[in-house]
Amino acid sequence: MTSILNSPPLPAPELDVAQWLNTDEPLTLAKLRGKVVVLHAFQMLCPACVKFATPQAEELHQRFGSGDLAVIGLHTVFEHHDVMTPAALAAYVYENRLRFPIGVDRPDGHGGIPATMRAYAMEGTPTLVLIDRKGQMRLNHFGHLPDLALGVAIGALLAED
Amino acid sequence: MTSILNSPPLPAPELDVAQWLNTDEPLTLAKLRGKVVVLHAFQMLCPACVKFATPQAEELHQRFGSGDLAVIGLHTVFEHHDVMTPAALAAYVYENRLRFPIGVDRPDGHGGIPATMRAYAMEGTPTLVLIDRKGQMRLNHFGHLPDLALGVAIGALLAED
Amino acid sequence: MTSILNSPPLPAPELDVAQWLNTDEPLTLAKLRGKVVVLHAFQMLCPACVKFATPQAEELHQRFGSGDLAVIGLHTVFEHHDVMTPAALAAYVYENRLRFPIGVDRPDGHGGIPATMRAYAMEGTPTLVLIDRKGQMRLNHFGHLPDLALGVAIGALLAED
Amino acid sequence: MTSILNSPPLPAPELDVAQWLNTDEPLTLAKLRGKVVVLHAFQMLCPACVKFATPQAEELHQRFGSGDLAVIGLHTVFEHHDVMTPAALAAYVYENRLRFPIGVDRPDGHGGIPATMRAYAMEGTPTLVLIDRKGQMRLNHFGHLPDLALGVAIGALLAED
Repeated sequence: MTSILNSPPLPAPELDVAQWLNTDEPLTLAKLRGKVVVLHAFQMLCPACVKFATPQAEELHQRFGSGDLAVIGLHTVFEHHDVMTPAALAAYVYENRLRFPIGVDRPDGHGGIPATMRAYAMEGTPTLVLIDRKGQMRLNHFGHLPDLALGVAIGALLAED
Repeated sequence: MTSILNSPPLPAPELDVAQWLNTDEPLTLAKLRGKVVVLHAFQMLCPACVKFATPQAEELHQRFGSGDLAVIGLHTVFEHHDVMTPAALAAYVYENRLRFPIGVDRPDGHGGIPATMRAYAMEGTPTLVLIDRKGQMRLNHFGHLPDLALGVAIGALLAED
Repeated sequence: MTSILNSPPLPAPELDVAQWLNTDEPLTLAKLRGKVVVLHAFQMLCPACVKFATPQAEELHQRFGSGDLAVIGLHTVFEHHDVMTPAALAAYVYENRLRFPIGVDRPDGHGGIPATMRAYAMEGTPTLVLIDRKGQMRLNHFGHLPDLALGVAIGALLAED
Repeated sequence: MTSILNSPPLPAPELDVAQWLNTDEPLTLAKLRGKVVVLHAFQMLCPACVKFATPQAEELHQRFGSGDLAVIGLHTVFEHHDVMTPAALAAYVYENRLRFPIGVDRPDGHGGIPATMRAYAMEGTPTLVLIDRKGQMRLNHFGHLPDLALGVAIGALLAED
């Protein structure tokens, strides 16, 4: 089988989030230990995110989010900072009926790459990160992943202790 | 044949636009007399616009925009005024590689329905308006139109003197 | 405008059909004079027909077939003759709920190209032929046509006397 | 997590196949013990098979078929027996460039439900059966399954010993 999962596992840097949507309290990877985490990094004005990756994250959340899979969005604004504000993101999330928790990646204060995006060395958006139950990063993928390939990888991680 | 065109024709109110993108000089229906005009009213955060109607307008522009069909976008912001600004629209247009001319419908200054949208009594976004060579409104449709039905209507209007 | 219609018009050879489905009596172009005719040549085992062109023909028939547009299917079997029989076609038409009239192009009796396909010099399937109200061929296109382009062409033909 | 897998596992009846395509030698579940088996039951004239389920089976085969996942098609003809013959199936497989092994479910000789379809009590086509490494049936699903849900289930089975 051609697995898309990395080997060996790598450490998953903690999230550095300025504010949250769709959750009553801030989330951390530490608190999510024991669950498989799907981290969906996106920008609200990135066409491939809007068309493919964000709906896929929402579908994952709807189907599997009630159990031991946590789907987390991360708004990693690295361009058009002046218009992809938290208020704009909130309107986008409302209009598209997104339900999964979304964090605003902490800006660097100089219009550059935000903190978590930098810590993960993400190349752009969309990026999909898979984190196993032990908090280890098993995938860090720039670009869209087909549903079948992603599903098989998630199924494998869910089967681990 | 089931035509989607209105009968009788109705007057088409002139555009009232605050600023333009993708055109060197302001457009008016008066100047476009003699051409068939497709007016695509949308909002950059309206999901049905982003997914269906705006790509359809761009395809019309690419296929037929070099002749006597003019495809014009109209950003009719009637909600989320604070985040669907002209600067945000410009970023959206850039990221989605839209090429057709787009006007920003003139705000009413009170966070309500903008001027052209009000003049056309549009019910929401997306709305598609077809204007014939004589400047008469022949269709004012709220919601997405299938390509085949829209194409047949445009072909009929192009065949008129 | 970039029209896909041929200029000048060419003569449209009469249909040579061995048997019909979805119609009580045989159709001829002569009888259809005065209507615009969409001739959809296909094979039931041609993937691009099944996926794109045949559903497009059915949509045209459903939307516009009650007026002066006639959508006619032509089963132009030029390969796998032993399995794309009229009985197999009937099962295919039934399972896919096709409603437009379909003629079986007359076999040459030697496992080659059937009569109407040969008369129109079609290059393969799907092929779409547009015939105007005077019975003249205005398009003879091998491959799938996008809905917008086809719609505009049909709208233009319907607007002719 | 909402798993689509059955619990408890059920015995998986052996395949009863009259002839094979896309494989040099006959396949049996007994020989495939140790692999996860995706059994895709279909009919070549079933629209939901052609549009959704068969392309999904081919994608699974292309992505994962070189390892310890075996994707097997089963042509379970229970209607239109006279036209969905092995020769017709071979033409269908050739035209659609299907590469995964496909068995013709053994006819009952009376125009009814074929042997394997009956043994599995399948309700129609498409049906998807998942068999684990021990040869136990873990899913027997009538209708199309979304890629994400199917992928997660397969990933879970692949992770088992």
